[in-house]
Amino acid sequence: MTTNRPSLDNAVERWQILAERVLVERPPWLRLCEQTVRLPDGRIVDDFLVAQAPPYATVFGLRPDGLVVAVEEYKHGPGRTVLKLPAGFLNEGETPIEGARRELLEETGYVAESWHFLGSFFDDGNRGMSQGFHFLATGLRQVAQPDAGDLATVRPLLLSPEDIRRAVLDGWVGESGTAAAILLALDRLNHTT
Amino acid sequence: MTTNRPSLDNAVERWQILAERVLVERPPWLRLCEQTVRLPDGRIVDDFLVAQAPPYATVFGLRPDGLVVAVEEYKHGPGRTVLKLPAGFLNEGETPIEGARRELLEETGYVAESWHFLGSFFDDGNRGMSQGFHFLATGLRQVAQPDAGDLATVRPLLLSPEDIRRAVLDGWVGESGTAAAILLALDRLNHTT
Repeated sequence: MTTNRPSLDNAVERWQILAERVLVERPPWLRLCEQTVRLPDGRIVDDFLVAQAPPYATVFGLRPDGLVVAVEEYKHGPGRTVLKLPAGFLNEGETPIEGARRELLEETGYVAESWHFLGSFFDDGNRGMSQGFHFLATGLRQVAQPDAGDLATVRPLLLSPEDIRRAVLDGWVGESGTAAAILLALDRLNHTT
Repeated sequence: MTTNRPSLDNAVERWQILAERVLVERPPWLRLCEQTVRLPDGRIVDDFLVAQAPPYATVFGLRPDGLVVAVEEYKHGPGRTVLKLPAGFLNEGETPIEGARRELLEETGYVAESWHFLGSFFDDGNRGMSQGFHFLATGLRQVAQPDAGDLATVRPLLLSPEDIRRAVLDGWVGESGTAAAILLALDRLNHTT
């Protein structure tokens, strides 16, 4: 049963949504629904919870001197101060790369020379929640002062790639999406240098 | 401003929860609340959304022949069939390592000789949602047939570490927590062998 590609047929496996009832709607932050779904084997589940939150972009930004522009911020999900990448929800109509550029500039004051898409994942496999789009940006240059306008203080920090790796391993990073983005970027850097 | 450890004081940065109103409560799956919080600068936010879902454990399990025991499953969050690690919500009163052992056995029929904790992250930095606990297990041995009992078909697959790395990079993996867990495990394996 060794394989390196999907063996399940997505068209067969996909749940069919028969009905949807909105439980909570707080645009643009969260939409919580209860769905009636039909499973591939014919079973009906009439109370499956689905939660939709806006997509977001993260930026692993590397300066010419090899340092990464990270940010430190209190996050109310983990309930503590964590290390993050510059990141934020996409605005209405904004593409992931546009959101990534905007958040990098707003949170750190930097612009980048080159952008590379790393990958995209949903934060909750069952409910959905946000979809994160992760980017590696190189040739970073500071052109402005940070101006995040978020609820929490966002403090830019410069770290070496090894220090940011340790931040993931040692628990300074507190979010799944941030951890995935940092490790993906380090993987890309390790395989292209 | 180069540093390799937290510069913000968590006791100062932490938001103070003044009140909490439950919007939706669906034990054990989800609890959605609206909180009144006081920010460190004194501002009051009276409608911050917090969502709590059960913690879960994931297992990157390596067999003596060097293959990883992964699973393929339809997930309704991403809405498609994705590659995952054996994983699941912790039962009431269960520790993360106990949940990891149970899920590995249930979803794949394997037991492991050695267990190593890799890290833990919250799936949603703003709302909270689930906290994932990620483990590397080695010396895997199959002692039973899979019996997951989940809503979706859970199909065990054997992949090389390089194939599972490619699954993260190429989008076969669909969840932030799974991506973080796989990349953390590969980091650990690359730095100890």
